[in-house]
Amino acid sequence: MKQFRIAIINITGYIGGEVARLLYSHPGVQIVSVTGRSEAGKKLGKVMPHLSDIDLTIEAEPGEADLVFSSLPHKASADTIAPLARRGVRVVDLSADFRLKDAAEYPRWYDFTHPEPELLPKAVYGLTELRRSEVASASLVANPGCYPTSAILALAPAFKAGLVYPDVVIDSKSGVSGAGRTPSLGTHYAEANESVSAYALGGHRHIPEIVQELGAFHQGGPVSVTFLPHLVPMTRGILSSCYARLVEGRITSGQQGIDELRHLYQKFYKDEPFVKVVETPPQTKQTWGSNLCLLYPTIDLRTNKLIVISCIDNLVKGGAGQAIQNMNLMLEFPETMGLQALPVYP
Amino acid sequence: MKQFRIAIINITGYIGGEVARLLYSHPGVQIVSVTGRSEAGKKLGKVMPHLSDIDLTIEAEPGEADLVFSSLPHKASADTIAPLARRGVRVVDLSADFRLKDAAEYPRWYDFTHPEPELLPKAVYGLTELRRSEVASASLVANPGCYPTSAILALAPAFKAGLVYPDVVIDSKSGVSGAGRTPSLGTHYAEANESVSAYALGGHRHIPEIVQELGAFHQGGPVSVTFLPHLVPMTRGILSSCYARLVEGRITSGQQGIDELRHLYQKFYKDEPFVKVVETPPQTKQTWGSNLCLLYPTIDLRTNKLIVISCIDNLVKGGAGQAIQNMNLMLEFPETMGLQALPVYP
Amino acid sequence: MKQFRIAIINITGYIGGEVARLLYSHPGVQIVSVTGRSEAGKKLGKVMPHLSDIDLTIEAEPGEADLVFSSLPHKASADTIAPLARRGVRVVDLSADFRLKDAAEYPRWYDFTHPEPELLPKAVYGLTELRRSEVASASLVANPGCYPTSAILALAPAFKAGLVYPDVVIDSKSGVSGAGRTPSLGTHYAEANESVSAYALGGHRHIPEIVQELGAFHQGGPVSVTFLPHLVPMTRGILSSCYARLVEGRITSGQQGIDELRHLYQKFYKDEPFVKVVETPPQTKQTWGSNLCLLYPTIDLRTNKLIVISCIDNLVKGGAGQAIQNMNLMLEFPETMGLQALPVYP
Amino acid sequence: MKQFRIAIINITGYIGGEVARLLYSHPGVQIVSVTGRSEAGKKLGKVMPHLSDIDLTIEAEPGEADLVFSSLPHKASADTIAPLARRGVRVVDLSADFRLKDAAEYPRWYDFTHPEPELLPKAVYGLTELRRSEVASASLVANPGCYPTSAILALAPAFKAGLVYPDVVIDSKSGVSGAGRTPSLGTHYAEANESVSAYALGGHRHIPEIVQELGAFHQGGPVSVTFLPHLVPMTRGILSSCYARLVEGRITSGQQGIDELRHLYQKFYKDEPFVKVVETPPQTKQTWGSNLCLLYPTIDLRTNKLIVISCIDNLVKGGAGQAIQNMNLMLEFPETMGLQALPVYP
Repeated sequence: MKQFRIAIINITGYIGGEVARLLYSHPGVQIVSVTGRSEAGKKLGKVMPHLSDIDLTIEAEPGEADLVFSSLPHKASADTIAPLARRGVRVVDLSADFRLKDAAEYPRWYDFTHPEPELLPKAVYGLTELRRSEVASASLVANPGCYPTSAILALAPAFKAGLVYPDVVIDSKSGVSGAGRTPSLGTHYAEANESVSAYALGGHRHIPEIVQELGAFHQGGPVSVTFLPHLVPMTRGILSSCYARLVEGRITSGQQGIDELRHLYQKFYKDEPFVKVVETPPQTKQTWGSNLCLLYPTIDLRTNKLIVISCIDNLVKGGAGQAIQNMNLMLEFPETMGLQALPVYP
Repeated sequence: MKQFRIAIINITGYIGGEVARLLYSHPGVQIVSVTGRSEAGKKLGKVMPHLSDIDLTIEAEPGEADLVFSSLPHKASADTIAPLARRGVRVVDLSADFRLKDAAEYPRWYDFTHPEPELLPKAVYGLTELRRSEVASASLVANPGCYPTSAILALAPAFKAGLVYPDVVIDSKSGVSGAGRTPSLGTHYAEANESVSAYALGGHRHIPEIVQELGAFHQGGPVSVTFLPHLVPMTRGILSSCYARLVEGRITSGQQGIDELRHLYQKFYKDEPFVKVVETPPQTKQTWGSNLCLLYPTIDLRTNKLIVISCIDNLVKGGAGQAIQNMNLMLEFPETMGLQALPVYP
Repeated sequence: MKQFRIAIINITGYIGGEVARLLYSHPGVQIVSVTGRSEAGKKLGKVMPHLSDIDLTIEAEPGEADLVFSSLPHKASADTIAPLARRGVRVVDLSADFRLKDAAEYPRWYDFTHPEPELLPKAVYGLTELRRSEVASASLVANPGCYPTSAILALAPAFKAGLVYPDVVIDSKSGVSGAGRTPSLGTHYAEANESVSAYALGGHRHIPEIVQELGAFHQGGPVSVTFLPHLVPMTRGILSSCYARLVEGRITSGQQGIDELRHLYQKFYKDEPFVKVVETPPQTKQTWGSNLCLLYPTIDLRTNKLIVISCIDNLVKGGAGQAIQNMNLMLEFPETMGLQALPVYP
Repeated sequence: MKQFRIAIINITGYIGGEVARLLYSHPGVQIVSVTGRSEAGKKLGKVMPHLSDIDLTIEAEPGEADLVFSSLPHKASADTIAPLARRGVRVVDLSADFRLKDAAEYPRWYDFTHPEPELLPKAVYGLTELRRSEVASASLVANPGCYPTSAILALAPAFKAGLVYPDVVIDSKSGVSGAGRTPSLGTHYAEANESVSAYALGGHRHIPEIVQELGAFHQGGPVSVTFLPHLVPMTRGILSSCYARLVEGRITSGQQGIDELRHLYQKFYKDEPFVKVVETPPQTKQTWGSNLCLLYPTIDLRTNKLIVISCIDNLVKGGAGQAIQNMNLMLEFPETMGLQALPVYP
């Protein structure tokens, strides 16, 4: 098999490292170049010991490659990958820089004026299951945020079927690795352990993504999204609990309605290798280290509310795994290649 | 100071043990009798090593006491304490058996016909801050559930002020000690660690309490409560995130409305030693081992939703601590006696 | 490639499940039969959700297979696999039943008289790196215990070189999954979390294995092993800290001796794919989900003690992974086949 | 009761905060002044929310006080408290600066030349149980390190009785709070969680304390201490496993020797309120938040080794609690005042 050459920009964070870990088992590619400015010149295995079987030295700038993953912070990512994209290098960007279609959202949510607004329409929002054909033909893929991945997959079937009013509450619980690898008081072990907290109560940056993408499934009018993220004392995993009021008459009342709902979700995702509609409420551990998204849709019959539980590994389906899923489409590999390992349990 | 004699029925669970731990530092009482059928005859310190400074032997039946705490499971608790209550012994019941005013709710939620329905009107629902005078004169107090304590304190001010529509979503995250001390697969370390899950999606038993008590603060019509509990990998703590749509025109729009909301909450709880309206989003760790409830009310200005974050230690304010707070009122001690220790941090 | 047929006896424990997880990615075998008596008749994915991509029903007895893994408890394993072994079916036994060469050790350490003592000499102790050629020609492999794997790999080079007196202290720290999947008070989340404890102070069952195998590397006289296991609040991983007094004159004093020691270890394991002598003290997380053993040998120059730190994933190199490594030798696959995934980090 | 005025220097670390938490419940003192240079000018409750009931503003320099606790880092502590000590203010120093009697040890272990060597002989090493009368009359107490507290209490009875050869291995496991409140990669949640590691393999700074103090109990010749600390994924707690070879003939062989050993330890600590010789192996959780040290001495009859397990809460008996125990002696309070709360469990 021909092996494509892959570069990973900013491998020294958790997402960049996870891209490398997963690609190591991918038969169709070879990692040829990895960057990380503050660690440039060091052997990869010195900085990320679990990657010591990948015999590379960290560089300041990426070398020649057929496809580049960027896990730089927002703004820096756009600055770095725009020249690559213009030269025709295929790019999967794991930052937020090409997720939003409206350039005006960047100053509002990310505090910067987008430096490359003309690239925004060319970028494809890479929530693979929902934009498969666009991803396959894209040269610049904006990989979704971890929370939006869990929430949009949970609600898309209900929105598309018009089951719910476009006013949702999404209460998400994330492991601490979602905060990245830079130490801070909030992610200091003794502070984060044995504690749960809500954060970003003034509005989290993942909100506009969710609004934009759910809006694509909703006929008529804007979508109201109340999204609140929480930090829970674990390393990996996101569980999103999604709540919306059912539109009257769209689904049978009582237990039969729950069955219909489940069938609707199963049908929506029936050919998807990574999205499973499960029969019992899932736990994040069942996705650990894998690219799975587990969905459990149900109805609170007392209050007539749709509830959907969604579980992912924030670093895999919520990051590196979905990025590789997108790469597979872009490079015409089978979509599951390199992503078939089962979840690690317990 | 005269010391009242206290008995604790079923001390061998986490709640019963926590009542003992806290009472040990209370100057006005003496624990004279503790029960736990399967461990009867053993020294308390053999079964619960942290209580070995309490020199008692576990008995099968409680001895003479001025006040009795029962932490038996539901149904068993009613059977055991009804005779005590009839003899005039003051009782704080930590089970659910006297929390619901409508006896018909017991077969529906707890699968048993209430054996002592005539006692239900005499029992006081002991959410102390909201029923202080009733508790003070009660001889039978039904101590609230852990989830309802966190949720009702969070929403009572908004309901009383008519700020929100009576249709709320309460998304609660609890530490594993809430599941009790009996081992099971779901609470096995390797299963619960590094994982989050939702449970009781068909309806948790704490729902009728919340409906009943919020209903008391709501003028006109029933209250719709969508409540979903989650298990998070920590030992103690509950964080409840409460969502409700604001009634238009009751509060100023924009940031000023958030300030008004905060003042309203501060005023509601201004003389409360154990309920604090805090200025930054709290984490459960800030209540660890203490009887505090920390509230953070705010408004999602994008979607016009009230959001209230509520943190407690599920075993203290959500159980043993509130039980002692109620005991203090019943025995005419200062309400904070024995409960003044600061949270343990980190 | 011809695929061998594999059966897994008692798949419903953590070790059995881990064998299945790892074999799922192995190109040379197919799992054709899985057993688990109390769950017989159920779909595998119902009992072990992370294995739901393996489309098998749990049976009471194993079907025809080319090689069988048994993860039954001791005694039950011998009873079950002896007939298979006699019929010529190749077996990797993950229990202790064929690890000890001296049948008299079984009543002493395991409280049963060995039912098949004539099979003991035919069984090979499958610490792969140390008995590779024997494993390759074996039809019955006794897979080592998790603690012995970590300890023997740590000390074998020093013993073989005669560097230390044969009187060692091995202080091991294990994650809770080592205690298996059956709930108990000691492994209940709220009991095991936020706590460390030593156990088996009267003598752990893994001691005779360690004595037997280190003895094979020691010239002259018995080996004294003081081994103490500890439970630490994590799911996976074992770190063993091994201490022994250096024999005078065998190694240069001072820092140069540390360098010599490291070189000796590096040479001993230089061609081993799964044993790495690392340059900085390792943490168990660096082996998570992988078949690696990380060793850090050093000398306490103040006290002239050898100290070796050894890290493994207790369920992989300490169990299922090493079992598959042995299977690879027995079936003439490359030794690393199916075991090349990198550790999952963070 | 007359209340003494207390100042806490550097309250913004975990140890300083713990001194404040515990003193808040002490009837004989009042905290009048707290410092923390980088946070000077802020309300204490803003920086340490669990202390918000203590209504003080953080200052740059301590105010007038009868007794001062310093939890500054080493070197800084000596510089700050020497002038106070010279003025006759009583000081309990929680740093290492006055623990070692030999000023020459400071450059060797702490990389600085001691600025106040003439104060070293006046300082008392405050391991309360072993130096009670000296502490009572001291004006400068050097509070012991967390590891030495656990190890010295574990071994002092055996050394005093001449039971063991003076060549010990101390393998200690500590929660992450021992590393302090300043974020770093090693204490970042996602790095420290689900992992165990050994550190300071070149020699930990607590070694000279242990050597010095055990030496005081040993007749004839120096004491060899091989000490290795480990980081385990929990917030609080230290478990030290101590190993030493028994001197032949000092204790009866077999099970009777274990009983004699236990009696010897029980007798040694029989009047101690905070040291308990327990009958089953303890876990650190049984000391959580309390000033207890739990000891479990036994003999490995196979190898003739003394093993002592020692559990403490690193921030209480290993820090703030013992500091207050010392303060109680210095101010002539009952030794247990303010320290009687039971451990928090689970």
